[in-house]
Amino acid sequence: MSALDDLMAFQRQTEALAQIAGRLSWDQETMMPRGAAEQRGEEMAAIEGVLHARRTDPRLADWLEEATPADGVAAAQLRLIRRAHERAVRVPSGLAQALARVTSTAQGIWAEARATEKVANFLPTLAEVIALKREEAFALAEGGDLYDALLDDYEPGATAADMAAMFGRMRPRLVRLREAVLAAAPPPPKLDHHFGEGAQLRFARDLATAFGYDFTRGRLDLAVHPFSSGSGNDVRITTRVVETDPFNCFYSVIHEVGHACYELGIDRDYLLTPLGNGVSMGVHESQSRIYENQLGRSPAFTGWIHRQMLDRFGDFGVAGPEEFTRIVNRVEPGFIRTEADEVHYNLHIMMRFDLERALIRGELAVADLEAAWNDRFLADFGVAVDRPAHGLLQDVHGSCGLFGYFPTYTLGNVYAGCLHLALREAVPGLDEQLARGDTSAATGWLRENVQRHGGRYLPQEVITLACGETPSEEPLLDYLDAKFGALYGL
Amino acid sequence: MSALDDLMAFQRQTEALAQIAGRLSWDQETMMPRGAAEQRGEEMAAIEGVLHARRTDPRLADWLEEATPADGVAAAQLRLIRRAHERAVRVPSGLAQALARVTSTAQGIWAEARATEKVANFLPTLAEVIALKREEAFALAEGGDLYDALLDDYEPGATAADMAAMFGRMRPRLVRLREAVLAAAPPPPKLDHHFGEGAQLRFARDLATAFGYDFTRGRLDLAVHPFSSGSGNDVRITTRVVETDPFNCFYSVIHEVGHACYELGIDRDYLLTPLGNGVSMGVHESQSRIYENQLGRSPAFTGWIHRQMLDRFGDFGVAGPEEFTRIVNRVEPGFIRTEADEVHYNLHIMMRFDLERALIRGELAVADLEAAWNDRFLADFGVAVDRPAHGLLQDVHGSCGLFGYFPTYTLGNVYAGCLHLALREAVPGLDEQLARGDTSAATGWLRENVQRHGGRYLPQEVITLACGETPSEEPLLDYLDAKFGALYGL
Repeated sequence: MSALDDLMAFQRQTEALAQIAGRLSWDQETMMPRGAAEQRGEEMAAIEGVLHARRTDPRLADWLEEATPADGVAAAQLRLIRRAHERAVRVPSGLAQALARVTSTAQGIWAEARATEKVANFLPTLAEVIALKREEAFALAEGGDLYDALLDDYEPGATAADMAAMFGRMRPRLVRLREAVLAAAPPPPKLDHHFGEGAQLRFARDLATAFGYDFTRGRLDLAVHPFSSGSGNDVRITTRVVETDPFNCFYSVIHEVGHACYELGIDRDYLLTPLGNGVSMGVHESQSRIYENQLGRSPAFTGWIHRQMLDRFGDFGVAGPEEFTRIVNRVEPGFIRTEADEVHYNLHIMMRFDLERALIRGELAVADLEAAWNDRFLADFGVAVDRPAHGLLQDVHGSCGLFGYFPTYTLGNVYAGCLHLALREAVPGLDEQLARGDTSAATGWLRENVQRHGGRYLPQEVITLACGETPSEEPLLDYLDAKFGALYGL
Repeated sequence: MSALDDLMAFQRQTEALAQIAGRLSWDQETMMPRGAAEQRGEEMAAIEGVLHARRTDPRLADWLEEATPADGVAAAQLRLIRRAHERAVRVPSGLAQALARVTSTAQGIWAEARATEKVANFLPTLAEVIALKREEAFALAEGGDLYDALLDDYEPGATAADMAAMFGRMRPRLVRLREAVLAAAPPPPKLDHHFGEGAQLRFARDLATAFGYDFTRGRLDLAVHPFSSGSGNDVRITTRVVETDPFNCFYSVIHEVGHACYELGIDRDYLLTPLGNGVSMGVHESQSRIYENQLGRSPAFTGWIHRQMLDRFGDFGVAGPEEFTRIVNRVEPGFIRTEADEVHYNLHIMMRFDLERALIRGELAVADLEAAWNDRFLADFGVAVDRPAHGLLQDVHGSCGLFGYFPTYTLGNVYAGCLHLALREAVPGLDEQLARGDTSAATGWLRENVQRHGGRYLPQEVITLACGETPSEEPLLDYLDAKFGALYGL
């Protein structure tokens, strides 16, 4: 056995254990009895301890020094192992385990606080999570920017300064579009119909299949917060059902299917290796967003959804396909990020980015967070937050310790914009296919040009390779102007 | 930190990781998409590798030598840690991981072979499992009996010779009772009614609650083979539903609730320590069996079930409570162990014990197993096996590598007989309570006298403490003679 063989065999077990940790998180959100929360915290800490010990194993440094990669794939594997090793050695094991334990129980506390609308019941836990994440950021940053150190976990190579600059370029065009749309016409009528849970979930499964989700390597369950979980041959998705608003379920499913198909589409040769995972959250979000929005909310595909829904739910009071498309693409300053339209979505992100950056840098105290949130929301959206579940308590991220994660959503939208432009050039007859409910040309192109590579290239590299040019926010903004301009007759 | 503190802190994480491995097995049987089977095998091998490394960690020997137990509880903890350590160091890590990998995938192969009635599709895998288990037995036995080495894993201190002697004493009385019952009267009529899955599962949940199962620390799902899984505050049960035979579901649930309540009833102070698990499979089975049979199939409790079922399912064609009790206690030489009546059940075990002992000792080849099974079944039950799912393929145990497990079922029945005798003395008005569907005095006595102790005492010790005398098979056989004598007017 060469050093490379030894290293890869060791890493394979680490990857398998990381999959187990992910499956436990899935279980916690979908299946776990609530009385098990504290015990689960200890279990999560124990597996995190094992993972941390493996990632900091001194043999790794030796193997990494000795191993000679034969090709680009092996070199990429070594690069990712080295990166994980170097990050892990900076974080003390006790801190890594404390984070796993606290974030595991924090999720239940957040869900309870959200259900009862009691911010005060969540803040002490959030403060504990933030204190631990700041400690982690200090350890990782080695004198650099604290927020960058966390962001880098989700988007290797990205910096808060770059994000802030990009957000600064995007905001004026988004605000201008938002104002134009809101001034152009009153929003389309809301649905006034009851869509039963069983029928919603049946159609959700058909939608997942229409976007290429393989149910023999995944499953669909209910959860408070929709998510996708796992890599390789076990990639599960969740959704939620609101019986007055079927699009909540349907578009959550399409979104999570985008994430899941990325993982499921990775080259099988990379299974249980570092390359066998999506390369970054930004690229991940590019897949979920292009499935959900550029494909799933396109006038062509919504026509198909409209006909499907008429078959399944009968007449639900929508005048025709054009009105249906406008309803699915309603533009409104709503409270909830996950339900936001494409025009508003990135404004939700910009606000979270600024707030959490201030928290991590120690410029904003947890005690002042709710007021800061509500002030900012009113300033950006022109509406006052009416209750905590519509404000600070809406997102699971804080309880999970996912600081630095939010900007990757907008980066994903930006990447999706670039990919969509390239996809439209590569598949000229796409709308005719989408109008038949056939996504195979689009999802096939994404699998071939993005998904199959897994962690093979850097995030920006894989988008550049797929699109033939360096990604920028322009294609996304052009797409939004064109789409909503046409829908609202601007 | 003293050596004892260090040891217990280390062990706590090992216990947490063992819980994770158990949860993965639960997931595999209930939730996992089938395309994930191979990957899951690698995951199981990886976590088994971690557990094996911890159980063989050289620091354990040092801590065990230095640690000074302050009381009986600490001494019992050390005894169990030492036992696990000494067993683990005899088994090479590669073998432990190979067993985890092979048995993980073998379960899917078994389920498929059973569904398609193709023995030949399972035998190569079974042969592989047996070869690995024999290798493990050689490593553990250190020159002693191979089967004993495996049996000891499930029932510390038990030997095959003791089991064989006990079975020899039990068989004549069981056969005599069986003959008398079968000669006395034709079996009661079978149910001829449809019992919908939803209604069965609703009643199953109420039955579980009636026996004290805490759904805030567990859950009920469907699986091919009913089982209970987990310790501490996350103990889950499964059942299956046959719409023509509701007792399959109902009594599986009561049985698994017995197992689950044992784990849930253990002293909270023992959580995530070696004492925080049921002490042996025999004691475990004593709980599941006394819940299922001595309580659940008693004429008093079946009267309550009968009234509940009339409320829920309407008239399902049973003349009255006496006939209902006879139906629930039907005595018949059926094919399936898990559906066997109390008179036949132990005969199923004796046959499996002899066959698997011969397999492990190398006296029976896997190629000859089906013929040996069918010959023995005909000899013991007077009926020829009509298809593999009714014969060799009925049990999950072989695919899981659970050799040495079967005799603990009968040992559990024997223990249940002893506990039932003591319980009846301790709770004189028990039948009046059971007739109201109230099991609290019975389950409370079992929790107080058996369950709460967890691994604190040796298996025989805990039964002796609860009953005030050394366990023997006599109370079980007396109970069976009395119960079935009364039911069949012998």
